[in-house]
Amino acid sequence: MRDGINTPVTNVPGPPPVGENMLIAFLGPFGTFTEQAVWKVAPAGAELIPVTSAAKALKMVHDGQADRAVVPIENSIEGGVNATIDALSKDGKLTIVAEMLVPVRFVLAALPGTTMSDVKRVGTHPHAWAQCRGWAEDHLPGVIHVPATSTAAGAELLGSMAGSSGELPFEAALCNATSVERYGLVPLEEDVADNRGAVTRFIMVSPPGPPPPATGADKTTIQVELPNDEAGALLSMLEQFSVRGVNLSRIESRPIGGEFGHYAFSIDIAGHIAEERVQAALIGLHRTCPKVTYLGSYPRVDGIRAEVERGTSDQDFVDARAWIRSLIANG
Amino acid sequence: MRDGINTPVTNVPGPPPVGENMLIAFLGPFGTFTEQAVWKVAPAGAELIPVTSAAKALKMVHDGQADRAVVPIENSIEGGVNATIDALSKDGKLTIVAEMLVPVRFVLAALPGTTMSDVKRVGTHPHAWAQCRGWAEDHLPGVIHVPATSTAAGAELLGSMAGSSGELPFEAALCNATSVERYGLVPLEEDVADNRGAVTRFIMVSPPGPPPPATGADKTTIQVELPNDEAGALLSMLEQFSVRGVNLSRIESRPIGGEFGHYAFSIDIAGHIAEERVQAALIGLHRTCPKVTYLGSYPRVDGIRAEVERGTSDQDFVDARAWIRSLIANG
Amino acid sequence: MRDGINTPVTNVPGPPPVGENMLIAFLGPFGTFTEQAVWKVAPAGAELIPVTSAAKALKMVHDGQADRAVVPIENSIEGGVNATIDALSKDGKLTIVAEMLVPVRFVLAALPGTTMSDVKRVGTHPHAWAQCRGWAEDHLPGVIHVPATSTAAGAELLGSMAGSSGELPFEAALCNATSVERYGLVPLEEDVADNRGAVTRFIMVSPPGPPPPATGADKTTIQVELPNDEAGALLSMLEQFSVRGVNLSRIESRPIGGEFGHYAFSIDIAGHIAEERVQAALIGLHRTCPKVTYLGSYPRVDGIRAEVERGTSDQDFVDARAWIRSLIANG
Amino acid sequence: MRDGINTPVTNVPGPPPVGENMLIAFLGPFGTFTEQAVWKVAPAGAELIPVTSAAKALKMVHDGQADRAVVPIENSIEGGVNATIDALSKDGKLTIVAEMLVPVRFVLAALPGTTMSDVKRVGTHPHAWAQCRGWAEDHLPGVIHVPATSTAAGAELLGSMAGSSGELPFEAALCNATSVERYGLVPLEEDVADNRGAVTRFIMVSPPGPPPPATGADKTTIQVELPNDEAGALLSMLEQFSVRGVNLSRIESRPIGGEFGHYAFSIDIAGHIAEERVQAALIGLHRTCPKVTYLGSYPRVDGIRAEVERGTSDQDFVDARAWIRSLIANG
Repeated sequence: MRDGINTPVTNVPGPPPVGENMLIAFLGPFGTFTEQAVWKVAPAGAELIPVTSAAKALKMVHDGQADRAVVPIENSIEGGVNATIDALSKDGKLTIVAEMLVPVRFVLAALPGTTMSDVKRVGTHPHAWAQCRGWAEDHLPGVIHVPATSTAAGAELLGSMAGSSGELPFEAALCNATSVERYGLVPLEEDVADNRGAVTRFIMVSPPGPPPPATGADKTTIQVELPNDEAGALLSMLEQFSVRGVNLSRIESRPIGGEFGHYAFSIDIAGHIAEERVQAALIGLHRTCPKVTYLGSYPRVDGIRAEVERGTSDQDFVDARAWIRSLIANG
Repeated sequence: MRDGINTPVTNVPGPPPVGENMLIAFLGPFGTFTEQAVWKVAPAGAELIPVTSAAKALKMVHDGQADRAVVPIENSIEGGVNATIDALSKDGKLTIVAEMLVPVRFVLAALPGTTMSDVKRVGTHPHAWAQCRGWAEDHLPGVIHVPATSTAAGAELLGSMAGSSGELPFEAALCNATSVERYGLVPLEEDVADNRGAVTRFIMVSPPGPPPPATGADKTTIQVELPNDEAGALLSMLEQFSVRGVNLSRIESRPIGGEFGHYAFSIDIAGHIAEERVQAALIGLHRTCPKVTYLGSYPRVDGIRAEVERGTSDQDFVDARAWIRSLIANG
Repeated sequence: MRDGINTPVTNVPGPPPVGENMLIAFLGPFGTFTEQAVWKVAPAGAELIPVTSAAKALKMVHDGQADRAVVPIENSIEGGVNATIDALSKDGKLTIVAEMLVPVRFVLAALPGTTMSDVKRVGTHPHAWAQCRGWAEDHLPGVIHVPATSTAAGAELLGSMAGSSGELPFEAALCNATSVERYGLVPLEEDVADNRGAVTRFIMVSPPGPPPPATGADKTTIQVELPNDEAGALLSMLEQFSVRGVNLSRIESRPIGGEFGHYAFSIDIAGHIAEERVQAALIGLHRTCPKVTYLGSYPRVDGIRAEVERGTSDQDFVDARAWIRSLIANG
Repeated sequence: MRDGINTPVTNVPGPPPVGENMLIAFLGPFGTFTEQAVWKVAPAGAELIPVTSAAKALKMVHDGQADRAVVPIENSIEGGVNATIDALSKDGKLTIVAEMLVPVRFVLAALPGTTMSDVKRVGTHPHAWAQCRGWAEDHLPGVIHVPATSTAAGAELLGSMAGSSGELPFEAALCNATSVERYGLVPLEEDVADNRGAVTRFIMVSPPGPPPPATGADKTTIQVELPNDEAGALLSMLEQFSVRGVNLSRIESRPIGGEFGHYAFSIDIAGHIAEERVQAALIGLHRTCPKVTYLGSYPRVDGIRAEVERGTSDQDFVDARAWIRSLIANG
């Protein structure tokens, strides 16, 4: 078997196949933005399994109890979803095979008969609250936030009180549009959000396996720990990319070792692991960083093709190697 | 007045003075880790004002309703506290004048008479839950998390049920040790944490004013937006530090503009703005980055002195400028 | 007196004045390309003093025996003139105040009556020979080179044999056009050169003094020794330029200390020492390199203006310093 | 045939064999330092062919008229030997197979009966004169230099005047010790040199062929042209080395294209082309620079082993590639 991995790999077999009905674990419950994300990629016949944390969804795939997991990884306003990033890198074996975007739009929903002036407390997930707090201060002055474990959970709890004589935990829920009708609520206000363009990015995660084939518009997600003992370690790490003309579309630091000052970086590379320049950068990282975790190469949902700078195409690498071989053989 | 700002500034007047009793707004309620942090720096006679979010505490200082704010900024396990980082950079005027460390240790507390086997639901803030989830899965299998707006709020709610015949919202609260007695609870388990060494870092924030004097062991906190149109912008930004021998003790990306792929970086520099090498790096950033927000220079709580590399002392800068002056005057 | 040297210096007094008649030492004898260079800058009434080496011309200025020296520093084919570069850096005090270009065109000259087929030996300076060897091999197959101390010296020696019965040292001289008639020779072939565009660059050197005022199209010449004990020292040195957007128009290594592997670099910077970005780069070099020798700022003869990148104008530096001052004073 | 050239090449066949008696062209005549260098590497039975320039010696090898050429490439005081560097890079096919060091020590030699006070003129090669000028000014004040085409040629010419009644061209020659007796001269002063430690480095050049096997203490000589259109091109080129932990032991700029401001760099790399980190750096250069000329890998005469930084051993590269292969195959 040949050793020359820098050669472009053309016959990538793709992610592991699944049985008749794909089992997809997702950050539930039903009615969340994550469920919306699932339906963007779920094949016909897929069965959805809502779970209570991103870590649990990923663990089901790890343990073979689900074929895929769908979890949020980044929000355009709030930044990275740490629970997902940390769980993925801790597992270290699972691979991302797709990404999906879902616009963040909330509905302020209540039991029928409720009016805006009735609303003194709003139940929702803290992240949803963070994205609507400005709106709430403007439209519901003095309103109190009651935390729920998810946007859907708040809606479900409120809906379950229909017809009950018990005291309501809150008068309205901030939730996903799909949760309103599902839980018997009515909208008081639609399209609520402090930032109109907010978007959440979700990923579909598979058991370990080859990546989907390169499309020319791909991402590769990795996590890199830096050497502790080098000033300028981050600079050196970034040079491993720049010297091969590889661009990054996301970089986030995560603490490691439970100590301040030690970081790993979660990174999205513009390019596919089957491309030479990406391989060369990864080889450089593997040689010089204490830990590099590969988390998958997959098509970009925005379809933006990687810019291939002069001297960084696959052919440039192939030609350069042929030149070295010829020098060693013939001078 | 002279223009040569690169000169070390020796007579820094220090942060703005306060009246008889310092008013300190903090991320409340009483009984949280933040209150513990306040007491590490509050002068005699200080009055504490608990508020419901870091942004509110900072706004009170901005509006002159408080002299100082104390808020969490980083946890050794969870990473940066985005709400604080974003509120500080959005305000842009407030300055950090001190940092404090508080070890993260929780108590599982309950009403008297409760036993571990009674506990089916635990009320606490989601961040606290995130740091104890592993312990809970081991010691309270199947237990359910009920979100509270703070660790103290959960304890307070549970304590308020003492003697009530109403249904408890949860059987136990995960809270700070100081909340247990305060709210009439008893400990079921002390020293609960998935990571024994977890620490949260807090900051004290002042209205705009000169920084505390340099001690030789200082930090400077800034937020830097990168030019959107340059590949390698992060690399170039880091070179502004490395070329002056300035080290970073924290770097975190935050999304900006509500779009994926555009980031600002929240950075702690090892050094004080009165030091030449720090000034030189900041000048470089100001020249080349679209926005640099200065958030204060203040003593490091760990007392670690900045390593001053060869050629980067204040005297090295003074000598180099004298050399240039002499060349221009005399060749 | 203010300390802030980074401030642009606007009132540069210019090089030291000279008396009634400027004395100019040059690499002689009369009739060389250097004499041609002298006439491009010599003021009316100047007196020329031919000397036998660049080092001697420079020493006369150093010792006050001449007001200026004119010597070659670079040839577009052969590269730097080591004797000049080394003598300038060894002296360390003299400053370059102007540069001049002279196209390299030789004449093959002989005593009247000589024909091409008579020419078996050609007398000229080895550098001239190096630039015409290809032509000689084509047009005078088998011809022998007889070294002379200068192109003019060869012509002078040949001319001095006119009418003599002694044996000629060589039948033809390769010399400057101005030497032909001066020494009583006739051209056998004009416009001789292997490379039609070859040009030699000369410099005029003054005693220590302020530089000529900045024109926007200037050069600054320096020599920099690198730290011996750092791998990557050259890379670090170049970063001192790149981080301030300063470009180089020439870089040449010169051995130092008489040992292989230790180098100084002779460098032409695109810019004037009165410009902030140039000062900032020089300050960085002075701080980090064991020795930096400044050899003058002067107008570029080609008139090419320095490209001032975003964030590197004088105003950008002034604004950045004002910002730092304001932060230290007011937070 | 496999494509993976990054793999260490272990079975390097070595330079092309020669016939019974190796023909070695060298920069003559006999009696120069170059002849001394030849004897350090010439095998028994070798025949020496003195020629009048480095370019001619190299051309004889190119044309098959000699098996090897020996020429000077660098002097510890004067720097690189441009004629050799330019001829090697212009040819582009020949390869360096060995290097030799010869200390630079001159003898001031004269015809028997001459005394120091008789010496008014000294004949020698200009480079030799450059290295003894200080000594001459001290010991022979007012003495005149008469250029010769080599140190040996001056000695030979002077020796040929023995017994002649003709006027001597000069009274003494500065030459190599081996020339003194050979040409019938006697030493007036031995061990003449301005710098006691001056050393010249010579190389032995072979027709194109595989390099000698790696020894762990090797050099690789290349010439690299930079892209004209990139500021910072030299910085980028050096990063191709630093990012693979490859050190340089020599770097010299040479003008190209006959225009000021365009340079190629002649570089000695610490390492052998059979080593992975050297191959990786060369691949990077080949991809990004318009022209890279390989001039051979050969043992260092000083025996200094290359320092292999963490993450840059051959095994580090092999491991990293195996990791990439495994990721592509299995995720």
